[in-house]
Amino acid sequence: MKSIQIGILGCGTVGSGVVKLIQENGDLLQQRLGGRVVIRRIADVDIHRRRNVEVDPTLLTTDATAVLEDPEIDIIVELIGGCDVALRFCREALNRKKHLVTANKALLATHGLELYRTAAAQRVSIGFEASVCGGIPLIRAMKDGLVADRVRSIIGIVNGTCNYILTTMTESKRPFAEVLAEAQAHGYAEANPSFDVDGIDSAHKLQILATLAFGAYVPFDRIHVEGIRQIDASDIEYARELGYRIKLLAIAKQRNGELEARVHPALIPEDNLLAAVGGVHNAVYVVGDAVGSLMFYGRGAGQMPTASAVVSDIAEIARGLLHDPTARGVPPPPISDAEAKIKDMASVRSCYYLRIMAIDKPGVLSRVTGILGSNNISLVSVIQKGREEQSAVPIVMMTHEAVEGDMQRSLLAIDQLDVVDRPTMCLRVEGVTD
Amino acid sequence: MKSIQIGILGCGTVGSGVVKLIQENGDLLQQRLGGRVVIRRIADVDIHRRRNVEVDPTLLTTDATAVLEDPEIDIIVELIGGCDVALRFCREALNRKKHLVTANKALLATHGLELYRTAAAQRVSIGFEASVCGGIPLIRAMKDGLVADRVRSIIGIVNGTCNYILTTMTESKRPFAEVLAEAQAHGYAEANPSFDVDGIDSAHKLQILATLAFGAYVPFDRIHVEGIRQIDASDIEYARELGYRIKLLAIAKQRNGELEARVHPALIPEDNLLAAVGGVHNAVYVVGDAVGSLMFYGRGAGQMPTASAVVSDIAEIARGLLHDPTARGVPPPPISDAEAKIKDMASVRSCYYLRIMAIDKPGVLSRVTGILGSNNISLVSVIQKGREEQSAVPIVMMTHEAVEGDMQRSLLAIDQLDVVDRPTMCLRVEGVTD
Repeated sequence: MKSIQIGILGCGTVGSGVVKLIQENGDLLQQRLGGRVVIRRIADVDIHRRRNVEVDPTLLTTDATAVLEDPEIDIIVELIGGCDVALRFCREALNRKKHLVTANKALLATHGLELYRTAAAQRVSIGFEASVCGGIPLIRAMKDGLVADRVRSIIGIVNGTCNYILTTMTESKRPFAEVLAEAQAHGYAEANPSFDVDGIDSAHKLQILATLAFGAYVPFDRIHVEGIRQIDASDIEYARELGYRIKLLAIAKQRNGELEARVHPALIPEDNLLAAVGGVHNAVYVVGDAVGSLMFYGRGAGQMPTASAVVSDIAEIARGLLHDPTARGVPPPPISDAEAKIKDMASVRSCYYLRIMAIDKPGVLSRVTGILGSNNISLVSVIQKGREEQSAVPIVMMTHEAVEGDMQRSLLAIDQLDVVDRPTMCLRVEGVTD
Repeated sequence: MKSIQIGILGCGTVGSGVVKLIQENGDLLQQRLGGRVVIRRIADVDIHRRRNVEVDPTLLTTDATAVLEDPEIDIIVELIGGCDVALRFCREALNRKKHLVTANKALLATHGLELYRTAAAQRVSIGFEASVCGGIPLIRAMKDGLVADRVRSIIGIVNGTCNYILTTMTESKRPFAEVLAEAQAHGYAEANPSFDVDGIDSAHKLQILATLAFGAYVPFDRIHVEGIRQIDASDIEYARELGYRIKLLAIAKQRNGELEARVHPALIPEDNLLAAVGGVHNAVYVVGDAVGSLMFYGRGAGQMPTASAVVSDIAEIARGLLHDPTARGVPPPPISDAEAKIKDMASVRSCYYLRIMAIDKPGVLSRVTGILGSNNISLVSVIQKGREEQSAVPIVMMTHEAVEGDMQRSLLAIDQLDVVDRPTMCLRVEGVTD
């Protein structure tokens, strides 16, 4: 029986999941691959920590270099996370002509181009299915399923923490801070939730998906990123009354040679499939020129879903090696030398939801609509919520499609009105259609 | 520039789509694969028919054998359909060590085992992404994405025609026959709609998916198949009132070493994602032991979505050959020698919806519930719809989980009651949960 030896770097939650899955489904995997996947070494900073799986102590080492240098190891599995040590180890693995599997989205979003190119130059494979939406086979769908398609757009709910918070806010009508605290207590949100709730994690995933789908490198810092901290329970309620749900979306759209790349909360129509994606689930909607609309849904995080994706990458490389031990790796999809041409956020077009907190007195509406009109923004509807003379009441507006720059100029002017007592809430509306 | 030569057998709707897609996205494909996919010959029974794509007339031939025998051709693409000529040509292609791509679900559902084994023996690849749900990369997800997972269940809406009919019946409250006629007029249903509306097409797809997912051959004739002809507009309405939608589902579930394999209409809760899948769309819900629940959604048919899947298979094989021209094909996933152990339909457990047409007079309900009770079936709810003394009125019942055999015995007895004037409608309820 032929076997493929793997070395794991980092044995925290996901690493333990990978060990567990290979232990539990190893026979099945062997049957499917025609050979065995064998864990040869596991490097971790703490080889004594408690894990929810029995790890053979003779496999554990604190010396990652020993794993990287082991000539018997075919595939290095990087599950350390972050961009410091992980980058160094990934570089070293590739330069030693080891195939690489990583779940590290932050690393790929910021140093992916270097790693993809090194893998191609060294003729080894780099698998990163687990870096985007855990167990949903999205990277594979992009690389292989849509290989004949020109991708037009990607719109996804790619952060389970934010989706859990927004879903819970919607269902329980409670404020962000309270729901976040509860999510932290349940382990659905980190003690420092910034990566998730400020949209950074979603932007990492968008960078990886968009670079793959459009074949041109998307510089991470060119992605427009807004999080969900500012969403008020009232916005969720008003959106609901208008027939929408609020979701944090990662959006990439190619139009006329320019790429929109943005992460922000948005209103989506309640009859849209993405609106029905609740709790910690992820879903990504992709439109290709031949295939039309596709949607992929599942658990975007968690120990075993992520481990499932990691092992699927190990298996794909192992299948190739078992088939032909001298085989070169499958090169990552080609990425053009020129960076993707990112559309300036100010020229992006969208419909908008506005909640203006204005003193309830005559003439206010005409001043606000005057500002919008002079910036080429026309309204679909205006609803004043409540009535309380001389105090601030919400005015909820839905606009026709407008240009972001015009909207930002309007907001500056509206918020300077003496009758407006708080910054206006402005959310984009995303249509997500065929 | 290296190139891969393909020969296409059958140039109807899907064949023309493949030609079109390779023409339109050929450069993109070349960029992604590092080599060119070249159509060398196209065999069709009618080389003069009108197509929505310009086909170089020198490529066309009526002689399929010439295509099969061409030594320059690497990949044969079978798009003829049916099980007669197509089977002969597919066998011949494989025996000549040509890689094979086919969209032919009827062929694979009935002769797949032979073809998979021939491909493995000849060491060539067989691609069949397009055979199930058109452009949705489901076969790939099963083979590669879920390679580390033990699949627990597959529940899918896999026939666009039926879903269109049921969705339209739900929205417009019109009867089956009328909506079917309209679907035929719009080209969403065939002149002979039996394959679709009687569930056969769904069973073909289920056979392919289940054989792949569970690694054991599912004999096509062991799949329990019911279609949607008998669904009454009133059933859709009553289901709706109870919080359900009616969908034609293809279901495969592995439990205790036995496989349930069945196609039938079923009630699903309205808050379930599958309930939101409307019109001609398809969606398949898969549960794996590590990855949890996944759902795949998209257009399950149509010229370009299907072509997208066909070309993705061509591309995958081409990528391998371009990489290494002497490479053997990727073997199809292993299928055990023993057939899948299919659970007897009579022992399947389910909750049920019943619509009994009974004369509205005292004592009827006690006779019906007496029969159910003596067959170990207990009720969740009973609603009599309308009131019209001495004529038949619908009594709608929802049951707790029961055994199919008990239900069939009950139905026989109920329909023999003198107060019941029409066969009782019985539909299963499918929960679709994590």
